Amino acid sequence: MKKVIVLGAGMVGSTMAKDLAADFTVTILDIDIKKLNAVKRISQVSVIQQNILEIQKLQSIIKDFDLVFSAVPGHFGYKTLKSIIEAKKDVVDISFFEEDPFRLYRLAVKNKVTAVIDCGIAPGLSNIILGYYNKRMKIKSYDCYVGGLPFKRIQPFEYKAPFSPVDVIEEYSRNARFVVNGKIKIKPALTDIELSNIPPAGMLEAFNTDGLRTLIQTMKIPNMKEKTLRYPGHAEKMKMLSDAGFFNKNYIEVDGKKIRPVDLSTKLLFPLWNLKKGEKEFTILKIKMRGQEKNRNKDIEFILYDKYDEKNRDTSMARATGFTCTSVVRLLAAGAYKRKGIIAPEMIGKNEDCFRFVLGYLSKKGIELRFEEKIY
Amino acid sequence: MKKVIVLGAGMVGSTMAKDLAADFTVTILDIDIKKLNAVKRISQVSVIQQNILEIQKLQSIIKDFDLVFSAVPGHFGYKTLKSIIEAKKDVVDISFFEEDPFRLYRLAVKNKVTAVIDCGIAPGLSNIILGYYNKRMKIKSYDCYVGGLPFKRIQPFEYKAPFSPVDVIEEYSRNARFVVNGKIKIKPALTDIELSNIPPAGMLEAFNTDGLRTLIQTMKIPNMKEKTLRYPGHAEKMKMLSDAGFFNKNYIEVDGKKIRPVDLSTKLLFPLWNLKKGEKEFTILKIKMRGQEKNRNKDIEFILYDKYDEKNRDTSMARATGFTCTSVVRLLAAGAYKRKGIIAPEMIGKNEDCFRFVLGYLSKKGIELRFEEKIY
Repeated sequence: MKKVIVLGAGMVGSTMAKDLAADFTVTILDIDIKKLNAVKRISQVSVIQQNILEIQKLQSIIKDFDLVFSAVPGHFGYKTLKSIIEAKKDVVDISFFEEDPFRLYRLAVKNKVTAVIDCGIAPGLSNIILGYYNKRMKIKSYDCYVGGLPFKRIQPFEYKAPFSPVDVIEEYSRNARFVVNGKIKIKPALTDIELSNIPPAGMLEAFNTDGLRTLIQTMKIPNMKEKTLRYPGHAEKMKMLSDAGFFNKNYIEVDGKKIRPVDLSTKLLFPLWNLKKGEKEFTILKIKMRGQEKNRNKDIEFILYDKYDEKNRDTSMARATGFTCTSVVRLLAAGAYKRKGIIAPEMIGKNEDCFRFVLGYLSKKGIELRFEEKIY
Repeated sequence: MKKVIVLGAGMVGSTMAKDLAADFTVTILDIDIKKLNAVKRISQVSVIQQNILEIQKLQSIIKDFDLVFSAVPGHFGYKTLKSIIEAKKDVVDISFFEEDPFRLYRLAVKNKVTAVIDCGIAPGLSNIILGYYNKRMKIKSYDCYVGGLPFKRIQPFEYKAPFSPVDVIEEYSRNARFVVNGKIKIKPALTDIELSNIPPAGMLEAFNTDGLRTLIQTMKIPNMKEKTLRYPGHAEKMKMLSDAGFFNKNYIEVDGKKIRPVDLSTKLLFPLWNLKKGEKEFTILKIKMRGQEKNRNKDIEFILYDKYDEKNRDTSMARATGFTCTSVVRLLAAGAYKRKGIIAPEMIGKNEDCFRFVLGYLSKKGIELRFEEKIY
C-alpha cells in the first residue's frame, strides 16, 4: 500500500484521513494532540504531532511518504505547499491560500512534482466539471453557486460555518473577481444579491464572493461568475456589518483602547456561527454553463446536494470537499494523472477518465449529483 | 413679559428658545459656550454658561424666572427636574428620563409646582390627543406610530438621528412595554416588525419601542401600543446587531483589551447616523384609536406630518417636539393650566381649551395635522 501523509487534522483533514485509510497507509500530522487523538479514535491512521511551520522537520518527515495531502489553514497554505514542492513530493492541496499558486509553477516543474491545488468542492469539483466541458464545447458563460448551510435556521444569521468562521469573515471582506464580456471585473463581496430557488435546498440567495480563483487565469470564457449561497437575508446583514465598518482591520480608539473592529466582531460572531458536533447541515453546488457544440446551442446544469452523514458523523461540507480531494489523491497514487507543475483542478477535468473517476467516486460515497443538458 | 429659562441648548432646546423669544424674555443655559453662541446668533435670547449638575447654583439662577423649560439629556433629566421642583418653579420637561416621574409627585404638590413631563411629540402630543378623546369616549385600543427620517435614503441604515444617536441605541436596547387585554406585556425593542403605508411618507416599517411611558400608569385602556417608524429593513439590521451582542453594555476581552461592544458600535455608527446641518428630513406621527361613544363605534385616525424648515433651518423633529412643548409653556404662563403635581401630557389633553390651543399652535406653525373620525 502506498503511504500518504495528511497535513492538518481539522474538519476536512480528519474526514479525508479516514477515507484514505481504506486504500492507503495513512499518517496524519498536526500540532494539536487533541485533534490527532480524535482522528485515531475513529480510524486506522498513525499520527505525528508536529508544528507545520518548522519547515525542515516537516520536509524530513514527508520524505518517507509517496504523497502529501495538505489541509492546513489558508494563511500558511502557500508556505507549506512550497516546502512540499521543495521536498519533491507530489501533493494535493486544499488550503485555499490567497497567494498566486502559479508563482510555484517553475519550481514544481523543475522538481518534477505534481501539485494539485484548490481541490475542494468549489473551487475544486466545479473546476473539474468546467475543465471537462471546456475541452468539448465552446463555453460562453459559466455560473457557479455554492453554499453550506444548517438545516435549522436560527435568526438573525441563519448560518453556521462548516469551516472556520474567521475564513467566512475573510470571504465576506475580500473583493470578488469575475469575468464579463471577456474583461475581469472587481466588486466588493456581498454584492449583486439575487434570490434563487435551488431544489432540493429551496429558496436561497446568491451573492458575489471571490471563488473563481485559478479559472480567471486558465480559462478564456467571456463570462464567468461564482457566488455564495445563503438563506435569504443573510448577505444584507453581513453587508451592513461590513459597510458600517465592523469588519475593518484598522485599529480605532474605543474607550481609550486601540482595537480592530473585526476582532470584536469575530469574538461576538464565533459562538453564534459555531457548527456544533452532530448539527445537521447540507451542501449545495449548482453550475450553469451555456455555449455551443457542433454549431448547436448547449446548456448544461449541474447540481450537487449532500447532507450530514449521521452514520459516520461527517459534515456534508467535509464530505463534498474531502471526497473530491481524496479521489484526486487516488488518481495521482494510481499514476492516472501525471502532468508536472502547479495543477489547477480544471486541468484534471480535461481528461475524460479522470473526470469520470472523480464524479463516480462522489456518487459511490452517496453524494447526489445531477447533470441536465439541453441542446437546441 | 414673563421670564423663561431654557435648560440645555441642544437641537430641541435652541429651537424652542427661538420660538419662546417671540412672547417671553428668554434666557438659555448650557455648559457649552459654542452652543450658546449659536443660539445667540439667531435669536434674541440671553445666555448663561453653567453646568446643570451644580444643583445649588442652578437653583439660585432659576429663582429669577417665572418658568423653567428643561431640555437636558435624558440621563440627568430626573435629577434636574427634582432640583427645579425643589426650587419651587413651574417647569415643562422634555428630557425623557428613564426614572418614574411620579416619584416626584408629592414633592411637586407640596411645593405647589406644576411640572409637565414628556412634553414632546410622542410621548407628548400623542398623550394630549389620547387624553382628550379618553375623556369623551370609551377607548378600547390606542396605537401610536412615530418616526423622524431623512428624505435621502442611504444604505445600509436609511436613517439619520434627529437627536443624539446614543439615545437611539438606548431606544433599541430598552424593553418595550405595551398593554394587551388589560395586561402589561414586555417585549424586546425591535420586535413585531410590520409594514405600514403612511401617506405622505410612503411605505415604512413599525416596530416595538418603549414609548407609552406614563400612559401605562394613567390610562385604563385595554389595548395600547407605541411603535417607532423607519424605512423598511432598518429594524432587522438593528435587531441583528442587538441579538449578536453589538449593543451589549458588559465589558468583554478583545485582543487583550476590555471594551464594551456598545462603545465600539456607537463609535462606528455615529458618523453614519449624524444628521448634517441642513439635511432634509421629515417627522410623521400616526395615531389610531378605536372605541365607543354614546353606544356607537367610533374610530379616530390622526396624522401629523412635518418637513425640515428651510427658511428657519429647523428640523421637523425639533419643530414638532419643540412647538408642542412651547405651546404648553404658553398655557402655563397664561395661567390656563393650573393643576399642581407631576403632570403627564394626557392630563392636559382632558381640558378642551388646552387641547385646542396646542393643536392650533402646531397648525399655525405650518405643521400638517389631519383628523379622521368614523362613526358606525
